[in-house]
Amino acid sequence: MKKFLTLLYFLSFMPFIFSQQINGHYHGRQISFPNIPGFITLVADFHMHTVLSDGEVWPSIRVEEAIRDGLDAIAVTDHIEYQPHQHDIPHTDRNRPYQIASSRAENRALIVINGAEVTRNMPPGHANAIFLEDVNKLNVKDSIKAFKEAKKQGAFIFWNHPHWEAQYTDGIAKLTELHKKLIKKGMLNGIEVVNDVTYSDEALQIALDYDLTIMGNSDIHGLVDWQYDLPSGGHRPVTLVFAKEKSAESLKEALFKKRTVVFFNDMLIGRSEFLVPLLTESIIAENANYVETWSGTTSIAKLQLWNKSDAPLILKNTGEFDFHNQGQIITLAKNTSMELQLKTLEKLEEFELKFEVLNAVTAPKKHPDITITVFVNQE
Amino acid sequence: MKKFLTLLYFLSFMPFIFSQQINGHYHGRQISFPNIPGFITLVADFHMHTVLSDGEVWPSIRVEEAIRDGLDAIAVTDHIEYQPHQHDIPHTDRNRPYQIASSRAENRALIVINGAEVTRNMPPGHANAIFLEDVNKLNVKDSIKAFKEAKKQGAFIFWNHPHWEAQYTDGIAKLTELHKKLIKKGMLNGIEVVNDVTYSDEALQIALDYDLTIMGNSDIHGLVDWQYDLPSGGHRPVTLVFAKEKSAESLKEALFKKRTVVFFNDMLIGRSEFLVPLLTESIIAENANYVETWSGTTSIAKLQLWNKSDAPLILKNTGEFDFHNQGQIITLAKNTSMELQLKTLEKLEEFELKFEVLNAVTAPKKHPDITITVFVNQE
Amino acid sequence: MKKFLTLLYFLSFMPFIFSQQINGHYHGRQISFPNIPGFITLVADFHMHTVLSDGEVWPSIRVEEAIRDGLDAIAVTDHIEYQPHQHDIPHTDRNRPYQIASSRAENRALIVINGAEVTRNMPPGHANAIFLEDVNKLNVKDSIKAFKEAKKQGAFIFWNHPHWEAQYTDGIAKLTELHKKLIKKGMLNGIEVVNDVTYSDEALQIALDYDLTIMGNSDIHGLVDWQYDLPSGGHRPVTLVFAKEKSAESLKEALFKKRTVVFFNDMLIGRSEFLVPLLTESIIAENANYVETWSGTTSIAKLQLWNKSDAPLILKNTGEFDFHNQGQIITLAKNTSMELQLKTLEKLEEFELKFEVLNAVTAPKKHPDITITVFVNQE
Amino acid sequence: MKKFLTLLYFLSFMPFIFSQQINGHYHGRQISFPNIPGFITLVADFHMHTVLSDGEVWPSIRVEEAIRDGLDAIAVTDHIEYQPHQHDIPHTDRNRPYQIASSRAENRALIVINGAEVTRNMPPGHANAIFLEDVNKLNVKDSIKAFKEAKKQGAFIFWNHPHWEAQYTDGIAKLTELHKKLIKKGMLNGIEVVNDVTYSDEALQIALDYDLTIMGNSDIHGLVDWQYDLPSGGHRPVTLVFAKEKSAESLKEALFKKRTVVFFNDMLIGRSEFLVPLLTESIIAENANYVETWSGTTSIAKLQLWNKSDAPLILKNTGEFDFHNQGQIITLAKNTSMELQLKTLEKLEEFELKFEVLNAVTAPKKHPDITITVFVNQE
Repeated sequence: MKKFLTLLYFLSFMPFIFSQQINGHYHGRQISFPNIPGFITLVADFHMHTVLSDGEVWPSIRVEEAIRDGLDAIAVTDHIEYQPHQHDIPHTDRNRPYQIASSRAENRALIVINGAEVTRNMPPGHANAIFLEDVNKLNVKDSIKAFKEAKKQGAFIFWNHPHWEAQYTDGIAKLTELHKKLIKKGMLNGIEVVNDVTYSDEALQIALDYDLTIMGNSDIHGLVDWQYDLPSGGHRPVTLVFAKEKSAESLKEALFKKRTVVFFNDMLIGRSEFLVPLLTESIIAENANYVETWSGTTSIAKLQLWNKSDAPLILKNTGEFDFHNQGQIITLAKNTSMELQLKTLEKLEEFELKFEVLNAVTAPKKHPDITITVFVNQE
Repeated sequence: MKKFLTLLYFLSFMPFIFSQQINGHYHGRQISFPNIPGFITLVADFHMHTVLSDGEVWPSIRVEEAIRDGLDAIAVTDHIEYQPHQHDIPHTDRNRPYQIASSRAENRALIVINGAEVTRNMPPGHANAIFLEDVNKLNVKDSIKAFKEAKKQGAFIFWNHPHWEAQYTDGIAKLTELHKKLIKKGMLNGIEVVNDVTYSDEALQIALDYDLTIMGNSDIHGLVDWQYDLPSGGHRPVTLVFAKEKSAESLKEALFKKRTVVFFNDMLIGRSEFLVPLLTESIIAENANYVETWSGTTSIAKLQLWNKSDAPLILKNTGEFDFHNQGQIITLAKNTSMELQLKTLEKLEEFELKFEVLNAVTAPKKHPDITITVFVNQE
Repeated sequence: MKKFLTLLYFLSFMPFIFSQQINGHYHGRQISFPNIPGFITLVADFHMHTVLSDGEVWPSIRVEEAIRDGLDAIAVTDHIEYQPHQHDIPHTDRNRPYQIASSRAENRALIVINGAEVTRNMPPGHANAIFLEDVNKLNVKDSIKAFKEAKKQGAFIFWNHPHWEAQYTDGIAKLTELHKKLIKKGMLNGIEVVNDVTYSDEALQIALDYDLTIMGNSDIHGLVDWQYDLPSGGHRPVTLVFAKEKSAESLKEALFKKRTVVFFNDMLIGRSEFLVPLLTESIIAENANYVETWSGTTSIAKLQLWNKSDAPLILKNTGEFDFHNQGQIITLAKNTSMELQLKTLEKLEEFELKFEVLNAVTAPKKHPDITITVFVNQE
Repeated sequence: MKKFLTLLYFLSFMPFIFSQQINGHYHGRQISFPNIPGFITLVADFHMHTVLSDGEVWPSIRVEEAIRDGLDAIAVTDHIEYQPHQHDIPHTDRNRPYQIASSRAENRALIVINGAEVTRNMPPGHANAIFLEDVNKLNVKDSIKAFKEAKKQGAFIFWNHPHWEAQYTDGIAKLTELHKKLIKKGMLNGIEVVNDVTYSDEALQIALDYDLTIMGNSDIHGLVDWQYDLPSGGHRPVTLVFAKEKSAESLKEALFKKRTVVFFNDMLIGRSEFLVPLLTESIIAENANYVETWSGTTSIAKLQLWNKSDAPLILKNTGEFDFHNQGQIITLAKNTSMELQLKTLEKLEEFELKFEVLNAVTAPKKHPDITITVFVNQE
């Protein structure tokens, strides 16, 4: 009886939390990209912190932020070895962030993945192990043993911010012998080319040279809304994952298979194999026909060019024909269209649009080329 | 030496927190009202929670939110008796939220006040004691003893959400004998007429009948940005305090003297004694002169009417003269002006504007009247 | 052959005009109000000028503006007697503005009505005659003869800006004996209570006292976009006409039957007979049910209150029950909804919402009352 | 006496026009670019129409639009030979558009230039002659005689829309023998590479090959606000002229000296000689210093990069050092700044930023390069 009263007593203060989740519109902050042939495009952030290591929010907030951002998956990855709040939060169970977050995500569309940040001096620096079964087993003195344990649990492991200026003061990602060894032994599977507000060409080159999965994550400690100035149209960096289905299993498979593209600021970074199809699905030409004037039909084709992605696209015309109503470099804002007029010299039944996408990279300073076949409306 | 290395080791993960505070613009969310004769107007929120009771953020976030909102003062008021995170955060020192928050606020313009929520079934329900010296001494079984201890420490004590539907299912604030006794003994000094997203006419009537300070606070558990939809122009409820200077001491003196007005949604609530001067300082008429036409000077006076406050104002013309370019009820958005034309029947050197301010109340359904003397420019 | 060449020659410069009509989005400037029982609500502006009298645009622009504003009908009403551009535009046919405008409107959704402004000193001042067959016949010296001719043609005639400060320097509309005579003889059927940026309570009283149609029009000479600051959300004043169908005939019948409401700034002005149904169709309560807390169901009803009109609505709660989440005066922005919580004291199956609509008038300083029956969702 | 009364009578309807000019904010539509060393940057539009040829507005509107757009100068250039409104506006004096516009511009900051469009079949097609003394003298049958007369009056003459699809159906600008002859004789001084919503690489090449002034103008017939969708942030195309002072004389001198850059959509087009200084004055680096972390100073320089122009700038990093917080192509919105972090490998006292400006062209598909020397703050 007393227990019951106590329960009632505590329950009496709970409604605040729940009622407060509902309010507030999302103001178009939901990040969305088209699927590509054979795969669905999942939006994920695999690096973030809570009060259970050095973050500033309870794990529940990470779930709510992710849902507002339209993410399909997050990994909660508190530091194992770094516990600055331990005076107040002396928790010993390193799975708690995951437990709390996944409880909040129950029956909602967000996949929560158990993870942790192995937090060491360089080398090897910091690394995230995700899809862990028991984080506690990685809480060991020797860093290599932690990586081994992660691998044993089947985790996907990636090097965090290899260009972090607090560890490499020149901000240049540099692979050490230790890293090469970890890679060789399958204990380093990916690398962040983007962390928070930073990007590294050198990290991208390492990913390509050593066949690592290209990752980009927020590493958020405070609030996503503030750090990326969401009311001004900013967004957190995310890793787009091309998966067979929306499940943790499928995400893991896709990560190991390196099927990712990173969306950072107004930039897309990824292997050509995935970035080109993503762009091809994003850029759609519609309603092509020839401009008419009082003097008859011209050989200027006009069409509506859509950007169906959440990244603005800076497109350089590399096709055969010049534009009539634009210079040869155009910016197509996210989820909008513009009218494009092409001087095709003669009336064609079909023609090709070719673009170099300048705000996308498949390697340092290398931009993907895409080709779109346009069929002219015949009446 | 080992100690030094350990320190360095931990330090190595700290820069994130600090770097992340700086980013993000404030998008005009700063709440500001003019001073009134004899007092400065301080903007304060005296009710909020952190992970150290049932909130979802570390106390540092409450400081950052408040600074972004332009607040002059906050009281951190975690529940004493309700500790749902105790499995992870088994802290026994109830002064910790204050300590952590005030450390974050060091050398910044925000005053942080130690406080706590005495969290009991009705009656007496929940009450905040602020300006406490040691919260722990209130952690006692008997609720009256907790109030006594608060008074002993010189605290200002106010009744929280007397209209809370979880305690009074009809949402009607009702004073019990216990409350009357507490008031009589000086152990209940104020009352929330606004809590979070709710307002109570009955609570306002109690404040007036029993001479209590009129309070309005956020009681925030999650994030202010979300709960009040800041990107859409929302704001948290705040208590405007008319103080002699910007100090904790002065705030306390002002609260005991009942010098407050509550700003809630698009509404202002307060005693006429303070609400009328606040409105009078907010509504400014400038550049009055008479409209000229081809046929000579008219007797239509035009002037620029400014709202120098952060509340929109719904003004009903109760003066002698009708408007020429508006109906008799106008809405003046926050921090903007409109041209107003008055049909003064003859050319006057000065005249009076009179308004009933419909979105302000000095008692249930009673709106303040203000008078502005306008001097016409003489050339 | 030469003729053909000449035609070709001239045609060669025409495409500009047509291509330039298409561009430009309308940015939500389209004015729209719900229909009322028995009638459709047409949005109209019956007073405007072009370069063919003292305006600054070709009649085609008046058509394009109207279409952008979502109007159903306009009357082009150039001054008959005032022709300041006659040095360059010595046209003698006063039907030209109508001819040019209606040619531009061909096959589009806008009804263009032939009209003219009889432009005389006070009394009678200026009056618009609309639904004219031949404006030229009104171009006579004696003003009364012009009114007679208008009546003979079956025109609807209304007094323009009776409160115009260039004619009545105090801005007070005053009926003269001449006006009374015109009214009596059916030669003055309506009166502008709103002209451009001005409103007159006295004109409204005259409309009610002498049984005239209540009118509000733009009298635009320059550009609507500028005069009403459309990019900031302004709108031209319009007369809402409650017609049996969308046709010129039906508009005329409705005007003679006085079925109008004026939309000016953020204000609605009209006879109770039409304003109350318009407001009743505009304010919709949806999804009513009772708030639940951990302690069970409360007697606080919540519902979504919609404003389905293009006017913001300032609503004073005059019903039996207080609001829980708002003060007793609320502003509902155009085409939005808000959650409303009512303290119904006990759980009801249905109840009434009652509002005084403060930014609407049915007579000087008199606001309409509306009642909405709310049915609570039963599960 | 009767005359006086008549005057009074007409005056009585005038106040509308004047009162209507004042209202309406300009919503940041004013176009502005920095001056360059030795010259001030004037913003001008040298091609536009009114109701006195085939436009849709009175010349006064062209003045008001220009003032709202922040222009320093306009040329009113109605067609000489094409007068589709002649039924209503049978004016024979081709200087009237200029007279009306310059009367409206009196005592205001806008320079109005007398001009006209010589409107012929191709070749020579259409050409504008500006700084004319008497347009009527160009109203002759033989087109070459019209050019000769323009030259005789000292006019600056330029080829309009040489890529106009109604004259060259493939939209490709092509110089004929006649054009070459006109150029040789100093009767064709400039060429539009931009007209209204179109741009031509071929026209730009002709300008460079034949040493013609590069021009870009609106050729507006309807309303600037609509044609360029100003509320969405669009702007009319303008010719930036680098003049010794703000005067008609100085403008003319600058045009003959080819000191122009065209601002079209989000693109800048001009000779390197003027485009590079314009960009150099537009892109400003401020507050350079080195990023500090807990581990000491890094060799990552951060600075604030400003775009002080009204064109967004798409910048490709061609300097020695990579960015740390951005990819190598950045977009800097108009009149904003971004923080830029550069990995300078070691701490430098000064270094160079180098950019290729991708949305600027100095020749078809050729972008200007700019260099900015950055001095690091020394404390």
